[in-house]
Amino acid sequence: MPSSDLGPVPVLGMIGAGQLARMTHQATIGLGIDLRVLAGAPDRSAAVVTPRTRVGSWESLDDLLAFADGCDVVTFDHELVDPDHLAALEDAGHVLRPSASAERWAQDKRHQRSQLAAAGFPVPAHAPVSGMEDLVAFGEAHGWPVVAKAVRGGYDGRGVWVLGDAEEARRLAQTAADDGIELLAEEHVVMERELAVAVARRPGGQRVDYPVTETVQEDGICTELLVPAPVSDDVAAAARELATKVVEHVDGVGMVAVELFLATDGRLLVNELALRPHNSVHWSIEGARTSQFQNHARAVLDLPLGSTELTAPAVATVNVLGPADGSDPRQRLAAALEVDRVAVHLYGKSPRPGRKLGHVTAVGDDPDTVRAAAHQAADRLTNEQPTG
Amino acid sequence: MPSSDLGPVPVLGMIGAGQLARMTHQATIGLGIDLRVLAGAPDRSAAVVTPRTRVGSWESLDDLLAFADGCDVVTFDHELVDPDHLAALEDAGHVLRPSASAERWAQDKRHQRSQLAAAGFPVPAHAPVSGMEDLVAFGEAHGWPVVAKAVRGGYDGRGVWVLGDAEEARRLAQTAADDGIELLAEEHVVMERELAVAVARRPGGQRVDYPVTETVQEDGICTELLVPAPVSDDVAAAARELATKVVEHVDGVGMVAVELFLATDGRLLVNELALRPHNSVHWSIEGARTSQFQNHARAVLDLPLGSTELTAPAVATVNVLGPADGSDPRQRLAAALEVDRVAVHLYGKSPRPGRKLGHVTAVGDDPDTVRAAAHQAADRLTNEQPTG
Repeated sequence: MPSSDLGPVPVLGMIGAGQLARMTHQATIGLGIDLRVLAGAPDRSAAVVTPRTRVGSWESLDDLLAFADGCDVVTFDHELVDPDHLAALEDAGHVLRPSASAERWAQDKRHQRSQLAAAGFPVPAHAPVSGMEDLVAFGEAHGWPVVAKAVRGGYDGRGVWVLGDAEEARRLAQTAADDGIELLAEEHVVMERELAVAVARRPGGQRVDYPVTETVQEDGICTELLVPAPVSDDVAAAARELATKVVEHVDGVGMVAVELFLATDGRLLVNELALRPHNSVHWSIEGARTSQFQNHARAVLDLPLGSTELTAPAVATVNVLGPADGSDPRQRLAAALEVDRVAVHLYGKSPRPGRKLGHVTAVGDDPDTVRAAAHQAADRLTNEQPTG
Repeated sequence: MPSSDLGPVPVLGMIGAGQLARMTHQATIGLGIDLRVLAGAPDRSAAVVTPRTRVGSWESLDDLLAFADGCDVVTFDHELVDPDHLAALEDAGHVLRPSASAERWAQDKRHQRSQLAAAGFPVPAHAPVSGMEDLVAFGEAHGWPVVAKAVRGGYDGRGVWVLGDAEEARRLAQTAADDGIELLAEEHVVMERELAVAVARRPGGQRVDYPVTETVQEDGICTELLVPAPVSDDVAAAARELATKVVEHVDGVGMVAVELFLATDGRLLVNELALRPHNSVHWSIEGARTSQFQNHARAVLDLPLGSTELTAPAVATVNVLGPADGSDPRQRLAAALEVDRVAVHLYGKSPRPGRKLGHVTAVGDDPDTVRAAAHQAADRLTNEQPTG
């Protein structure tokens, strides 16, 4: 469907109403788009800032079909929708962007790993896990520790296990078998850094890519983003080229975030894909001329994409995680706003220890200064001792 | 009410649901504010992008009171609310920002002119008009042409008349008397440029001011904004100082836009005040580290204000006015988005010739380049021959 077929107010439906949908709404008000979300409840992050929310479940095909009925294009806040439901939506004539087939790359880590490897892309050594001894055999072949991943549904450190020896491997294999969780075995890459490259791509193939981000993780949760990533020009160029080729290969439409490992042995490996706006690109709201959220909407509506140029030489984003004491960072908004040149984004979610409740972004001339400013504002929101 | 008294989700009510309320919502989603608008109808510019809209009339005290009841702070999208209603809202215990007394400076041009003059601020020569011959007498004393202004309610060129001679003055005086319009007589200032300086101010007096804007007007409607205004450092400093003093004098809270005349004889004169976000500062969404909309919300909620630093050396904004052929610029969004480094803001309003339907902003290194880019995008939206 070319963009010229859309009416003067295109209706964009987003399945899911988390912070990604919330920030997509914010970014697209100026485009005159009618963004609607399918929310599990009226108090969800995006539902409290958008009108015309449909309350329903992404697990119900009836709810999905009813939601899609009023939309020109349907896109996603998460990759959890059942592939059969996605196929049914397309069969019913709805336009999904990304498509059901592209979405599989984000939903099924085994498919992603094996198919990217088959196409010649550099990925960590890996193997499917079917029998109880497969994890152990992988560790004996590739050395310990071994990384085990849930094939579906993991995020923010959930669904990933680092196994130190055969005993830990057998224990996890048993638990996974008991819980019906399919696993994938992977080499434990010794990393210099984790990087991410985001690409926005239209159905016809027009695309733009963002400067390389360093993503800093703690306990499997991304805590900070540093842009441009402190890597050589050669590594940055290789990362952008690799990500772009991956996005073409999977026929991604909308934003695609390609997470990469830069190993200490110099290898640049594809870690994971997200076919939607992604936490690793949140810095783009203030740090790029066009945010990932606006470019996602432009891409899925087949509109020309915006510049990804940085607005300042250095950008840092720090995630705001729910404090251990259960307190609400919203109570400390004023203290955070006192930090100069920092933008605060709160997601409207009730606090829970470790939950992503918001992020802050600082822009400026110097990487150390912006990183310190972002940490200062985040620490004020979480009422924690200074870090970083 | 100090900000610490607000709950974790402060409720900010905005009376009016035009594009200013729409862009305030967009700018404040990240602050976790619950912005609610009082809209004349559900299809208003802000009502179509915010939830929890109250449909009602700003002319009805009952509607105003019912709207204010759920809000921590009430602010304004326009200055048309009856002063008696504002006083009644304050009497009922509601927090208005700006206050009813500050709001009078924006509502009553005679009050504004005479009181600023009495306080020693430079303003154009002026006189109240009570009798049929007062305009003529003013013209004879100060020379023709004479500017006549409606004391209340004029905007976008409406409510302002340039009178060439006594005959035109008598004709207007008769029409105004017939229609019950109160007038003010002013000297016709020969201008080098029109400038605007915007200031955000908190109840306690903390304030930030934005770089000086040149506002280019055609037929009384602002068509473009150029930042920083092409004036000497001395003029820019004088404009910022003058605006800041005016804002202090009127005890403005929230955004205050001070429109200035730079006369060919070198005088810098106060033209008009707006005690709300204002068209002359729309460039700040992309052009400043903190937009006027976010700083308006921060100021009226008594939260620390954000940096007004420019994000690039040159910023230009061009208003998108409804084309003469009545066509809808939204149909041509794709063509406008092809223009590099331009941000498009559509207000969700139905087209009417000359109506402000949106604006576009370009940022970059060179004033001529960004001005050309902004005009190119605006011309594509309006389907008109290139200008500027």
